[in-house]
Amino acid sequence: MAASASSLGQSSSLRIGLVGFGTVGSSVARILADATATGLTLTMIANRNVARKRADWVSPTVRWTESVEEMLAPDAPVDVLVELVGGLEPAGEWVRRALASGRSVVTANKKLIAFHGPELEQLARQNGCQLLFGAAVAGGIPVIPGIEHGLSGDRITRVEGILNGTCNFILSAMESGADYAPVLADAQRRGYAEADPTEDVGGLDARAKLAILMRLAMRVHVAPEQIEARPITTVSSVDFSYAADLNATIRQIARAEQTPDGLAAIVSPMLIPRKSPLAWSTGTENMVVTAGAHGGEVVFSGHGAGGHPTAVAVVSDLVNLSHGLGRPPVTFEAAQVSIEPEVPHYIRFLVCDRPGIVAAIAGALAAENININAILQKPGCASDCLPFVVTVEPCRGSALRRALAAIAQMDFVLEPPLDMQILEK
Amino acid sequence: MAASASSLGQSSSLRIGLVGFGTVGSSVARILADATATGLTLTMIANRNVARKRADWVSPTVRWTESVEEMLAPDAPVDVLVELVGGLEPAGEWVRRALASGRSVVTANKKLIAFHGPELEQLARQNGCQLLFGAAVAGGIPVIPGIEHGLSGDRITRVEGILNGTCNFILSAMESGADYAPVLADAQRRGYAEADPTEDVGGLDARAKLAILMRLAMRVHVAPEQIEARPITTVSSVDFSYAADLNATIRQIARAEQTPDGLAAIVSPMLIPRKSPLAWSTGTENMVVTAGAHGGEVVFSGHGAGGHPTAVAVVSDLVNLSHGLGRPPVTFEAAQVSIEPEVPHYIRFLVCDRPGIVAAIAGALAAENININAILQKPGCASDCLPFVVTVEPCRGSALRRALAAIAQMDFVLEPPLDMQILEK
Repeated sequence: MAASASSLGQSSSLRIGLVGFGTVGSSVARILADATATGLTLTMIANRNVARKRADWVSPTVRWTESVEEMLAPDAPVDVLVELVGGLEPAGEWVRRALASGRSVVTANKKLIAFHGPELEQLARQNGCQLLFGAAVAGGIPVIPGIEHGLSGDRITRVEGILNGTCNFILSAMESGADYAPVLADAQRRGYAEADPTEDVGGLDARAKLAILMRLAMRVHVAPEQIEARPITTVSSVDFSYAADLNATIRQIARAEQTPDGLAAIVSPMLIPRKSPLAWSTGTENMVVTAGAHGGEVVFSGHGAGGHPTAVAVVSDLVNLSHGLGRPPVTFEAAQVSIEPEVPHYIRFLVCDRPGIVAAIAGALAAENININAILQKPGCASDCLPFVVTVEPCRGSALRRALAAIAQMDFVLEPPLDMQILEK
Repeated sequence: MAASASSLGQSSSLRIGLVGFGTVGSSVARILADATATGLTLTMIANRNVARKRADWVSPTVRWTESVEEMLAPDAPVDVLVELVGGLEPAGEWVRRALASGRSVVTANKKLIAFHGPELEQLARQNGCQLLFGAAVAGGIPVIPGIEHGLSGDRITRVEGILNGTCNFILSAMESGADYAPVLADAQRRGYAEADPTEDVGGLDARAKLAILMRLAMRVHVAPEQIEARPITTVSSVDFSYAADLNATIRQIARAEQTPDGLAAIVSPMLIPRKSPLAWSTGTENMVVTAGAHGGEVVFSGHGAGGHPTAVAVVSDLVNLSHGLGRPPVTFEAAQVSIEPEVPHYIRFLVCDRPGIVAAIAGALAAENININAILQKPGCASDCLPFVVTVEPCRGSALRRALAAIAQMDFVLEPPLDMQILEK
């Protein structure tokens, strides 16, 4: 009676060539192997060092190779190329050649899609094939299919979310009292973070995903570099303590909004009120919130990363292809990130205490017409290295940056102030 | 630069006949009217008492009629029938006739789809047209497209959620201290509840939606009557007070699970731990949680009801049709609800106090091998009408029912005990 994996796809049989047999690739092969009579047949696997990778549970009919060339050859038994290597090149070249030869492509490569999605979609259209990338954003959470097939009737004006599991793992562990460095080391040990974590903790991974969501949901195409990306590395445990006093927590948020004044987009650690859905995500979970003119807010959450959830998205794309179902055409306009939203900010200073500091800071903020909302100072800190927090009422980031630049020159300031947007709901 | 509504659909122009010009129907017409050059053209509107309904913002090219017959006529300028009247008949007859004539149908009719979905899907297939019902479950939340296009690569073993906005509105208001009767009256005034609220508060609406989700996600088809539906009307404010002591709240939950022992499905008020995503929904919000063998839990939430969100789902289905995109074929097996899960329960008694009550209740539970977990009694209640609560460790509902039937016969019992499952996460 159980829904069996054998019910996956039945319309036609697709021959699948898998490039990349790492965590996600082997999960994809597992699901395909379990799903007998699926209309999906794994025929080739390409990976470096095949001898080390070869797995005995993979059907003996599958051809293993170290050469993607072999898979791209005109006579290769491949209808769909599944690209799971990532990065711009050589993955981009493989995807282009597959599409140019009329083969559909399924990929989890957010970087490639963020930077070259429109060009690759056009190539697919010209060659009568499909480019599917449901796994590129939020892994196992069907955000892309949900937006493309279920929200096209709305006009989405805002997309925000937690798009990087590594940052969420680190920040939610810091919320529980851990320090940044040991948590990063732990994340690396568990395989959640790369040896070089810059793409994750610097916000570059999340901004590629945000650019993709902006194109699909808000129908604007921006170059990912246009989106300001601030690192989470400047957040320290004292910030979680102050955030708790403000009934909030801290998460890396990717956020884009279309307003009458223009388009805003940023990836940054932000203060999130505890009552916001965005504060619900812990560990490596991802979450996306869309806001539509007609349907209001929709929240998607779940396991955004990891081999199995990402493989579900890849196999779901393959099932769609096996039924002849592609994506609706994406219509979008090229756009520029043009504004910073007027929002409240949290600013944490680290100072060598002496009389007049609050007056000096308040003066610099007032000079930019920025109103102070609250001043928070925990008791018991050393006065020669004193963290304290000022929250300010909604203001433009540009005005705040000028005020903070002035303050950074003051003699009592020990390090550049940390400034984070406060999400209001 | 804003994504304009004009980007909806472009592949081909579909002529749309709208049956039902109520809250949802007029929202659909609004969105279609705003979306110029969409490839979607509203051509006919059918409703009783057209003279009263006719709206001046609807294009003068739209033909209004009181006769659905006219819209079903072979020469009517309609490619897709949008059915928004609801109920089994005459809506079912209209949908059948439209499909039989090769016209695709988009509907928000959960009852029709729960009871007759498989037969109607077959009719659509036989006639080379499509039956789409993304609006039938959870209105504006793209649960159905998410499951069908984004989770088909998983094997979903559990579906649970908050599928009825009226019950969620009532229960979350009761959580804040209101009583059932005035909240229901308020819901009726706001248009959230019908004059006869039985379908909502009795769980019949939610069980129809659960049956649809079970078929699409778990690939089992059960007759909706197979799913036990318990009303929320027996929940009183004292239960929220005891739930709070247990760090929980109360929501109407629809829940189905495939286990090695069999298939479980129920709609009932349940105790929800505060940390569960299901406790996040307030007001008329809906939420669906799926659990897959590979991808783990995915949460969808948002505005499940109301004219505009439901209209978004309807128009999204129309956009898909305009691009020639239908639903993947649904494969499922007929199934029976065969088990009750072994879960902990909350039991609230209302008794006329006297010595020996706890011993008598404990004895009846012990006779069925049910272990008591905790006994809670608020101070300050009148002893001749005393509510108190017993929580029990995981047990089968059948054993508990036998114990409660025995207890109901005891002389101190003033009303049948209220029994609710406690969700464990």
